[in-house]
Amino acid sequence: MIADRHTAREMLYASLGKPETEKISVRESYGRVVAEELRTDRDYPDTRKSAVDGYAHIPGHDSYVLKGLTGAGRKGPESIDGKETVFVMTGATVPDGALCVARVEDCVGRDGVITIPDMSAGENINKVGEECYKGTVVATAGSVIHDGLFPVLFYLGKREIEVFRKPKIGIFVTGDEILEIEDDFKRGMVFNTNKYILESFFNRFGFDYEYYGHVKDNRDDVVRAFDEMSSKYDIIISSGGISMGKYDFVKDVFKTCDYEILFERTRIKPGSPLMLAKKSGCTFIGMPGYPAALTTNLLFYVLPALRKAYGEEDNEFKIVDVVMRTETRAKEGRFELNRAILDVEDGRFYASDAGTQKTSHYNSFASVNGLLLLDEKTGSLVKGDMAKALLVRV
Amino acid sequence: MIADRHTAREMLYASLGKPETEKISVRESYGRVVAEELRTDRDYPDTRKSAVDGYAHIPGHDSYVLKGLTGAGRKGPESIDGKETVFVMTGATVPDGALCVARVEDCVGRDGVITIPDMSAGENINKVGEECYKGTVVATAGSVIHDGLFPVLFYLGKREIEVFRKPKIGIFVTGDEILEIEDDFKRGMVFNTNKYILESFFNRFGFDYEYYGHVKDNRDDVVRAFDEMSSKYDIIISSGGISMGKYDFVKDVFKTCDYEILFERTRIKPGSPLMLAKKSGCTFIGMPGYPAALTTNLLFYVLPALRKAYGEEDNEFKIVDVVMRTETRAKEGRFELNRAILDVEDGRFYASDAGTQKTSHYNSFASVNGLLLLDEKTGSLVKGDMAKALLVRV
Repeated sequence: MIADRHTAREMLYASLGKPETEKISVRESYGRVVAEELRTDRDYPDTRKSAVDGYAHIPGHDSYVLKGLTGAGRKGPESIDGKETVFVMTGATVPDGALCVARVEDCVGRDGVITIPDMSAGENINKVGEECYKGTVVATAGSVIHDGLFPVLFYLGKREIEVFRKPKIGIFVTGDEILEIEDDFKRGMVFNTNKYILESFFNRFGFDYEYYGHVKDNRDDVVRAFDEMSSKYDIIISSGGISMGKYDFVKDVFKTCDYEILFERTRIKPGSPLMLAKKSGCTFIGMPGYPAALTTNLLFYVLPALRKAYGEEDNEFKIVDVVMRTETRAKEGRFELNRAILDVEDGRFYASDAGTQKTSHYNSFASVNGLLLLDEKTGSLVKGDMAKALLVRV
Repeated sequence: MIADRHTAREMLYASLGKPETEKISVRESYGRVVAEELRTDRDYPDTRKSAVDGYAHIPGHDSYVLKGLTGAGRKGPESIDGKETVFVMTGATVPDGALCVARVEDCVGRDGVITIPDMSAGENINKVGEECYKGTVVATAGSVIHDGLFPVLFYLGKREIEVFRKPKIGIFVTGDEILEIEDDFKRGMVFNTNKYILESFFNRFGFDYEYYGHVKDNRDDVVRAFDEMSSKYDIIISSGGISMGKYDFVKDVFKTCDYEILFERTRIKPGSPLMLAKKSGCTFIGMPGYPAALTTNLLFYVLPALRKAYGEEDNEFKIVDVVMRTETRAKEGRFELNRAILDVEDGRFYASDAGTQKTSHYNSFASVNGLLLLDEKTGSLVKGDMAKALLVRV
């Protein structure tokens, strides 16, 4: 079962479905995804406020009698009449009756008598509701509560907020060749990297994941892992072994565990092995074992799908135009995602080939921040060519 | 003391200086900044590895005798000779003597005798050091340990890593008009927003900050805050009041506390009040009180400066070309940073004016992800114009 990349994405999206919602304290909401339309509960501003430090007054006179002082949050005289004036700070509520505020630097004050130049009604007063009226939509369902939206929730005085529940993700890695960095290195082995790739990106998006562990390549251990994880997690993600038919017990394991396999490979390079399987309430995503193949599948398919499953409306990485600073090699007739280092010069993105595109190589991901999308008709590119790149990090 | 924007940035950078370094466990290093040149400790791969599942052999014969099986991490026969073959898994070490690996699907096996088609030496073998040799630089000092680099450190088998120390930041907000969201709203007051703006962005960049609290607008409380914080933090950041000369005791406070004022305003809109002051070992950054003015200064000056102070080499937000989807208004003769909502269509960035650019308005930051940089010669733009935008979030 090989899926083309569009079908694979649709099947992934469909199998993960829509999350439920829950109400949480705004203080706990950083990184969550809004599940309601957020509206203002009052007019902004809710009173007429001074835009400057100066004298609130009714124009038409030369000199005024100073009645008092109002700060933002410090109460002063609530109204004025005739030739009265109140000194108001920036952000302070302008007293009733006043029609404008003269800047302090334009006025002369002596013995409580203030000389104010002529000005028009409305000057230097921020009107009630001028920013927005009560009931204005500030964010829609599907918005991430990021460093832009989070403080706005406080500005709005929201105490609780409806967000999407986080699907629970269980991770395991397979492979008898896997060491942990605390182990002594043995010739021909590799250090566990895939756990940290998954965790790093899941941390970026605030996913709720647990590391189940490192499962050895044998039937019983894999069946046990599936049995235990299926009841505990909404989504199970593995790396390596499983999807390769390596010891040829995989399909049998899926049958034993009641999983239906939706696809086993997709037409991309690197990393064509990507398995999607499902049973009621649990989706399994089997990812390839080579770190570069795992990362590519994560960026191209799995992260967008998980972000959608977490309720995010704008769930895909952006695809931007880039100018090639170097050549990059690819074969026509297949879809290749070449690792690239993107930089911005004078407003435009440029891309440099990361040096090697072999599936078994991985070190360049230390600085790779984009994947060139080279479709079936593109093939190799030379310096100066235009291309499209998935913008992973900026 | 008004600084132009270039001088202000230089003074900020200079006053924050370069951080010290420390050695930490790689497991604790996510989000930190590398302070050394990171090199590989061995060749990658360190043994000849099979690129496919298949038969390792010496070409030149038709049929071979199966000597055993080698998995990645499962030891099999260590060498072959003549007409011997070993079945090797993808990623497994190829036995000594073997010159190539034939794909299993191209061979026929019966009773331990394998028929292998003719092929050339080297085929399907990943050579020792082909990804990189021992001593290759994978990351340089100043690189952030992000979701790309973090897993690479594990791939490299690094247990400890030299990183920059994190300067300690203390935050306080001022203003008698500030309520917390647990308080009942009072007419004319505003909810504390600036604390959450600072915290949200500081979280994004992994800064080490503490919230000192909300300081009331009076001389004694401000002096006490400065005294206590100067000995505790490398950098003090405040919002509101202080830099406005509101109750006119600010300069006096700075004298009492032995701070030298470097500048009090910079030539940008919104948010010209930005104060930089210094005493030995402590830098004070006084930010404006309006949330929009605070955010603009944070994005334009303070975050890049702090990222540099944390050791980051690539410490500035990217500035990208955008096509205006709407008009945006600005005055020629001054530098304005207009709030915009950026989107990407067919590879290009487009910008829509956020609707209002008044300093006292803030709600649009819920979706603002870019600031249009409108310099002294630019003025207003109309739909279809090109502009430069600070890319805050993508």
